[in-house]
Amino acid sequence: MRRKEFQMEQDEDIRLFLQEMSFGYLATVREDGTPSITPLNYVYLNGAIYFHGSRMGEKMNSLASCSSVSFCVAREYAIIPSYFRDPVLACPATAYFKSVLISGTASTVEDLAEKAEALQAMMVKLQPEGGHKPINASDSDYRGRVKGVAVVRIDPDQINGKFKFGQNLSAEKMTQVAQQLDRRGNPDDAETIQLMRQYCPHHITEQ
Amino acid sequence: MRRKEFQMEQDEDIRLFLQEMSFGYLATVREDGTPSITPLNYVYLNGAIYFHGSRMGEKMNSLASCSSVSFCVAREYAIIPSYFRDPVLACPATAYFKSVLISGTASTVEDLAEKAEALQAMMVKLQPEGGHKPINASDSDYRGRVKGVAVVRIDPDQINGKFKFGQNLSAEKMTQVAQQLDRRGNPDDAETIQLMRQYCPHHITEQ
Repeated sequence: MRRKEFQMEQDEDIRLFLQEMSFGYLATVREDGTPSITPLNYVYLNGAIYFHGSRMGEKMNSLASCSSVSFCVAREYAIIPSYFRDPVLACPATAYFKSVLISGTASTVEDLAEKAEALQAMMVKLQPEGGHKPINASDSDYRGRVKGVAVVRIDPDQINGKFKFGQNLSAEKMTQVAQQLDRRGNPDDAETIQLMRQYCPHHITEQ
Repeated sequence: MRRKEFQMEQDEDIRLFLQEMSFGYLATVREDGTPSITPLNYVYLNGAIYFHGSRMGEKMNSLASCSSVSFCVAREYAIIPSYFRDPVLACPATAYFKSVLISGTASTVEDLAEKAEALQAMMVKLQPEGGHKPINASDSDYRGRVKGVAVVRIDPDQINGKFKFGQNLSAEKMTQVAQQLDRRGNPDDAETIQLMRQYCPHHITEQ
């Protein structure tokens, strides 16, 4: 059930999250009608998701038989233990996270210039420090390789972001959770508090 | 394409990885035949994956119409830049990761004792420090809540692990990559070198 308070309407936040994360999960339907998942490095470019891989294998067979796919990118920022909110019961235990779910249609890119552009964009994203000759389909060092690799484009029908950072809490409970995250001090806790401030309808009370 | 050299045959390593990771991705097939994905906290217990959630919503509708699911857990340890292996071309850029893909059948757990056991096991996994009364279906504080939440069990038909840490490299190239990871010193790089040692057929040459 997708609750209204967790919906992300800010496209820019979704774009930045898709740019930040290095890999996502592709769900496809196999020829026998069962679902499969593959974790994949990807790039979000010109409003589409691109990934590359072998021209053969189960994933490409699935895409050939059913081009409808879903693609999900998620990051968990903090496990919120039950005792942050209740001294006895386990029920309030939860997790704060960002997730983006894309539903769309996958197609194999045949145009060499588009393939090279997507592969180069993936390099810029995953290896921003450079250190290689840029990928270009007209470069004889790359042309055969660009031809040989499969590049798939997912054209999104729908992009839904769910950024869950305690939006359903009262101002008092929110402050309580933020203070305890601050005391715990796990690696992502400071960033989690920032995201609670950013996305929550209530202000965290400063003390 | 699943290459032989990346196959994991060690069940214990897969079990430990499923225990270590806090969330995975569930792929389902919607009533209209298109795939969907949901990131979920889970626990691997008695050879099955358990997760919980609302009794209603799209995910439960999908499971009711198609109980075949896939569940994937993955962690990326290191982006291996192209220049670790080639001073010019982008092609050797890759990533080292662990992933486990489970194909199986999902069913809603109705037995209260099994539901409580799964929920308690999830608490022990995600909140190992405790700090709550253990979940037990015979406890009047929990009984209604255990009834009210949906718990789903995935019985695996197949579990495939793919732990990719440079197994396809020659001993010389492997040593070269390990040395450069050591020099780079990103947070997961030392652990990545350990995993290369553990999973690669060649020994890394000590220098």
